[in-house]
Amino acid sequence: MSENKSETMKAITQTDLDDPRSLKLADVDIPALKPGEVLVKVAAAGVNRADLVQAQGNYPPPQGESDIIGLECAGTIVDAGDTGREVGEEVGCLLAGGGYAEYVAVPEGQLVPVPQGFSLTDTASIVEVATTVWSNVGMLAGLKEGDRVLIHGGGGGIGSFAIQMCKAMGAEVATTAGSQEKLEHARELGADILINYKEESFVEKLKGSCDVILDIIGGPYLEDNVRSLAMDGTLVVIAVQGGPKGTLPVARMMPRRQSVHATTLRARPVEQKSEICASTVEHVWPLIEQGKIRTTIDRTLPLADAAQAHELLDSGKVTGKLVLEVAGD
Amino acid sequence: MSENKSETMKAITQTDLDDPRSLKLADVDIPALKPGEVLVKVAAAGVNRADLVQAQGNYPPPQGESDIIGLECAGTIVDAGDTGREVGEEVGCLLAGGGYAEYVAVPEGQLVPVPQGFSLTDTASIVEVATTVWSNVGMLAGLKEGDRVLIHGGGGGIGSFAIQMCKAMGAEVATTAGSQEKLEHARELGADILINYKEESFVEKLKGSCDVILDIIGGPYLEDNVRSLAMDGTLVVIAVQGGPKGTLPVARMMPRRQSVHATTLRARPVEQKSEICASTVEHVWPLIEQGKIRTTIDRTLPLADAAQAHELLDSGKVTGKLVLEVAGD
Repeated sequence: MSENKSETMKAITQTDLDDPRSLKLADVDIPALKPGEVLVKVAAAGVNRADLVQAQGNYPPPQGESDIIGLECAGTIVDAGDTGREVGEEVGCLLAGGGYAEYVAVPEGQLVPVPQGFSLTDTASIVEVATTVWSNVGMLAGLKEGDRVLIHGGGGGIGSFAIQMCKAMGAEVATTAGSQEKLEHARELGADILINYKEESFVEKLKGSCDVILDIIGGPYLEDNVRSLAMDGTLVVIAVQGGPKGTLPVARMMPRRQSVHATTLRARPVEQKSEICASTVEHVWPLIEQGKIRTTIDRTLPLADAAQAHELLDSGKVTGKLVLEVAGD
Repeated sequence: MSENKSETMKAITQTDLDDPRSLKLADVDIPALKPGEVLVKVAAAGVNRADLVQAQGNYPPPQGESDIIGLECAGTIVDAGDTGREVGEEVGCLLAGGGYAEYVAVPEGQLVPVPQGFSLTDTASIVEVATTVWSNVGMLAGLKEGDRVLIHGGGGGIGSFAIQMCKAMGAEVATTAGSQEKLEHARELGADILINYKEESFVEKLKGSCDVILDIIGGPYLEDNVRSLAMDGTLVVIAVQGGPKGTLPVARMMPRRQSVHATTLRARPVEQKSEICASTVEHVWPLIEQGKIRTTIDRTLPLADAAQAHELLDSGKVTGKLVLEVAGD
């Protein structure tokens, strides 16, 4: 690290673990680099729903990882460690934690390039969602051109990205949301079939036609999701906003050869995350650079306003992503 | 078809669809060949639990298939149709139905060779189980050397085969059964960890250590099966003897990246069955011919005694397979 930088930095810490509103800017040590890591000066950090769960004490960081919140950011390499990368390079970063800070240590394999035409703020808004959606819909479920995919929560950050990515891959996209405004947003992003879950049943509308389903609701949707799968269909659950358990109609699945996968990106080892980052850059970055996937940022806030950002996201009134911006020196 | 054969044959038919005991030998038409099929003169037909379910009216044959019961047999090709196969060749046959008969029409891709050292009766006892176990444990779940696999029902036909196959692949095998006699049989076949499910809990014994689980119980075991899976573990359900639905702890599965698959072999299209037969012959036939997998035939009965065979299998007192033998001309 260069000599003219202090050993401390500003980062968001939680003074009262029982109160998510106690997220406050504080002085903490700049993280030390482990082998294979670079130090990135953060310009912008994306806000994810998992961050809210962590602030509520229910999603602790993987062992050995930063206890600072923040799963993605973008910025500039200021110390390349032993990696041979260039100091000064602008990068996006997939993180196990630590994004809500001025500096973060990142394994080299979890760095992604800034897509052509994207700012650092744009980049910080898509790293986590792009790797999450591609690793599940592309790498795991193997979505193909002409498939029908159901994306729950079309108004959220994951849903907004997934709709565009699946359309760009040539799939037919069905999506659910809880308001006409969110569905209108989903339609603008390319969704073909719009379902207001407060007004109609997705299982009745889709009638077992979906090759792939990307779900964030979990338990309560499990049986209806399986009933919405086509022959050889794949359900991937990546969040359980509705509840941790549900009923699985396994006899129904047998003649249809269906499967249910549940994953998180954050708990994966560095090797898997690095493989996912490389595959995402190979398959998804071109779609971004061709303008087929835009980022949808609801608004940006200063890093110091992390608590407010969490309250906003929790209100359910956000369409697209929230990004925290870190002031320059 | 040669001129000196009559147009009718003996086959097991069910005179009262509400009474499985009404399975009786009757004269029916010899099946006509479709393109790509051969006619096989049946020497022996394996009895499977699915046959019992079909006799109870709950597992109808796939559309367009024979309504005669019987998912596997072995015999001699008597009409090669348009396939170019040799009349007189001895073969094993994977069937969508029709095995409990003197003749059966079989798509060429669903023929397998008679393993070296095996009789036709031996062969008839392993075609369905070998393709079922390999397609799920090998092709789908990707069991590797050193993995731990849990096989439920170690005393049954599927269990007996799966224990030997998984041991021959270098896996550590845990198995459940409901009696010490069946567990002793499983131990002789190579099982490492024996669990009498009437006396102890497999979930407590295995503590989330299984890379692969092959299940035939379904709903009631679902949650305990998932709790017995290791990181990246795969549960494959191929029968639901205990019930059609169960509770899936999907939140628990997420950080462990686990999956649940449900399949049947019978409903697959001919192309998939042909691919499975070829892969099974490639990977499993050598293990059979090296003596690493033996067939375990409980007893053979004449074809006319199909009803008695079903009663025997239903009694739960059978260890290994039952095979129906067809008398020669």
